Amino acid sequence: MSAAMTEGTPDRPPTRRPGGRNARVRARILAATAELVARDGIAGFRYEEVAETAGVHKTSVYRNWPDREDLVVEAMLRYAEDLASVADTGDIHRDLVDFLVALAGGLATPFGQTLEQALLPARQSTTLRQALGRILEERVAAMRVRVDAAVERGELPPVDSSFLGEMVSGPVHLVVNRGTRPFTRADADRIVGVVLAGIRATAPHA
Amino acid sequence: MSAAMTEGTPDRPPTRRPGGRNARVRARILAATAELVARDGIAGFRYEEVAETAGVHKTSVYRNWPDREDLVVEAMLRYAEDLASVADTGDIHRDLVDFLVALAGGLATPFGQTLEQALLPARQSTTLRQALGRILEERVAAMRVRVDAAVERGELPPVDSSFLGEMVSGPVHLVVNRGTRPFTRADADRIVGVVLAGIRATAPHA
Repeated sequence: MSAAMTEGTPDRPPTRRPGGRNARVRARILAATAELVARDGIAGFRYEEVAETAGVHKTSVYRNWPDREDLVVEAMLRYAEDLASVADTGDIHRDLVDFLVALAGGLATPFGQTLEQALLPARQSTTLRQALGRILEERVAAMRVRVDAAVERGELPPVDSSFLGEMVSGPVHLVVNRGTRPFTRADADRIVGVVLAGIRATAPHA
Repeated sequence: MSAAMTEGTPDRPPTRRPGGRNARVRARILAATAELVARDGIAGFRYEEVAETAGVHKTSVYRNWPDREDLVVEAMLRYAEDLASVADTGDIHRDLVDFLVALAGGLATPFGQTLEQALLPARQSTTLRQALGRILEERVAAMRVRVDAAVERGELPPVDSSFLGEMVSGPVHLVVNRGTRPFTRADADRIVGVVLAGIRATAPHA
């Protein structure tokens, strides 16, 4: 809503930013790709439809992403960024609960489900899976930063942060992927409570 | 290899068991379906190939399962039974570790991956998902029996057994589905250790 945020609208295109127009075209193409991949799956989307949805010429898509797999991967990475952030309010329990609630929301979307499916080993090329693995690595890295800070402040005993990440997010994936009941904040709270208590109770010098 | 096991071979068909021949035909069809579904996915397998793989006439497949979805569901239920058992040696930690190791082994197979994919909400009909949900219900029921026995004997405080099941198996699904590293017995041991310690530490009257 601020002046800064409307700077890049079609009404007042910025003139000083190098590559501004192409950056906007690329962003529209990536958004359209993410939308179509969520609807039709990775194998199903077509460049023509991407161009149409993005409101750009088909050659813009081909010129920017001659390789179909590169386009899918970049679209997924871009739209999965929201799933990779862990806030630091100083309260590790609360921050992990917030993370799990956001994760569940993201996984429940068509795009999240496409990501989940794309990661199943039997279904995709090794190249694509490795690239999609970067999304997970970013999430693990965000988790590591947050957990290390908690250890540093004495909130938690020293702990393997990727193990902790698997322990808290595994049940979320399971509940959301089954789709038999909604994942609630109370679920997140109970999961984090048990995992943090278990990590404290089993720490060598707890 | 025993006489009993060769009793049903084509060389010496049993004559006394009612429905024996048809039961064997059905078992072969279900095995062939599970194999083809694992290879080609639920949408990909064909009745002709099922008949060929099972070594039966195509009409046998159509006669026993006029509905394609019924055939898939029954094949999956039958071949997922192994994933649903939890032993009772009297040591809840050990039994859960064994369960997780078996679960990881089952999930890592092409058939396990097909099951995982079939459960993703965006990808299948509601009917099929509900039917596949029975596989999960059986697993939850097996877990409930085992956990209730542990509570009864004072090994664990009173606990929601389906929550406990989600807590221990969620991380297994996550690790196996990512496929970036093997799931080991040490992983299972660490998961069960943290979850049981966490449940004991957070129990109201622990």
